[in-house]
Amino acid sequence: MTDRLITSLTNDTVKNVRALNMRKERESTGRFLAEGLKFIGEALDQGRTPELLLVGMEAREHPLLDRAKAETRAAGGEVVIVTHPILEKISRRDNPQTVLGVFEQVYTPLSAIQPKSAPCWVALEQVRDPGNLGTIIRTADAAGCGGVILIDDCVDPYSTEAVRATMGSVFAVAIARATSAEFLAWRQSWPGSVIGTRLDATHGYRDASIQHPALILMGNEQAGLTDTLAAACDVNVKIPMRGRADSLNLAIATGIMVYAVTDAA
Amino acid sequence: MTDRLITSLTNDTVKNVRALNMRKERESTGRFLAEGLKFIGEALDQGRTPELLLVGMEAREHPLLDRAKAETRAAGGEVVIVTHPILEKISRRDNPQTVLGVFEQVYTPLSAIQPKSAPCWVALEQVRDPGNLGTIIRTADAAGCGGVILIDDCVDPYSTEAVRATMGSVFAVAIARATSAEFLAWRQSWPGSVIGTRLDATHGYRDASIQHPALILMGNEQAGLTDTLAAACDVNVKIPMRGRADSLNLAIATGIMVYAVTDAA
Repeated sequence: MTDRLITSLTNDTVKNVRALNMRKERESTGRFLAEGLKFIGEALDQGRTPELLLVGMEAREHPLLDRAKAETRAAGGEVVIVTHPILEKISRRDNPQTVLGVFEQVYTPLSAIQPKSAPCWVALEQVRDPGNLGTIIRTADAAGCGGVILIDDCVDPYSTEAVRATMGSVFAVAIARATSAEFLAWRQSWPGSVIGTRLDATHGYRDASIQHPALILMGNEQAGLTDTLAAACDVNVKIPMRGRADSLNLAIATGIMVYAVTDAA
Repeated sequence: MTDRLITSLTNDTVKNVRALNMRKERESTGRFLAEGLKFIGEALDQGRTPELLLVGMEAREHPLLDRAKAETRAAGGEVVIVTHPILEKISRRDNPQTVLGVFEQVYTPLSAIQPKSAPCWVALEQVRDPGNLGTIIRTADAAGCGGVILIDDCVDPYSTEAVRATMGSVFAVAIARATSAEFLAWRQSWPGSVIGTRLDATHGYRDASIQHPALILMGNEQAGLTDTLAAACDVNVKIPMRGRADSLNLAIATGIMVYAVTDAA
């Protein structure tokens, strides 16, 4: 079987894939771009097959690449061979990965989340930084969390920068989104503790009594957790500031929280 | 007193300050750039005064700005008023901070570190990412660590990107650098536990018996801690991977470690 070869930077497929770097295009198509064989392998392990697999002409032979090609074709997707300049153009990097996949975005509806399937879940309110969001998804996965719920207006978890920061975990944990009203209604039936993280809380982050599955709420980078969401928590806790810094980076604070909660599970 | 006004993008002072975005220029001058009144305030609180304070023409009146101007002049530095395009050019941002300071880089010699002045210290081996390094400096400060020691070939803590990520903590904690040989010799007299963090360690990160002051060693983003440095630790510990992800971001792992160690202090 001979795969299609694309050498023109102005080819429509190249243009369409490159456009996935823009949020508008991702939202209208429901697709996103994942770069690198590690990411593709994570996706395949989770039963997610690229609709389009772009392979650089200089890509080295690798069993995982063979598997990716075979599974892409078996699922009705297309494998396309492209030149190095095309990879550079799509990834907007001088030193691009040699394998790229276009995948369908998946959001888990709140109603489909099974809280007891994991000891810990993370909800983020209006997170702003794609690197923070991607790193939080990676950390949630590493800690064994079930997923990440995005409340109100958050940065896009399927942006190229966020996906890169997940290191493949974007395929491994559930991603949901909700308005704060939807979240507050859904939260009523949460079977364990809902834990807010605020600098003005009185409980230390490892002192609160927690029932698993725990749901950790984190506010955004500038303002922290809003009063409305903090009031909906069973308990609010703080991570102590022991030096001169008056706050932690959001992804760091979330990492400390998810390990505290999953250590206790 | 009337401050000098600069309006030309090709002014030598502007060129020299902008050049501080390049590592070569930072190393030859021993200077670095800190952006924003919050950063300047942190510096002043630590007794660090800018040699050059650049204030945008549109900067709003603020008591802290008055203080910065006064302390800069009192210490023999210069206050310069500049236009918005100059701020944009220096910061390489569309939406620059309106106050910038040029400061002297400070490195604490290993021999000047007083281990018992803080419960915890962090050493990083060949850290590669400026955002990670800046975030680790901020986290070390928040946790009450004494400082960060950079081993062998690390990214520059005084790069604009690293400094931004510190959120001002670059002024609050000691920063040292050493070759691994210098570090290994110095480590011999460390009065507490030296703790390596490795994915293949057998002790859980909260299970090891630790004597404070503790010195936490973290390896780099790709390879982790080298065997040489791991062997020089009193104990190596691991942060458990409970999901599908096979590692944490370096700054996240460091954050989890420093809070574990300072919680126990």
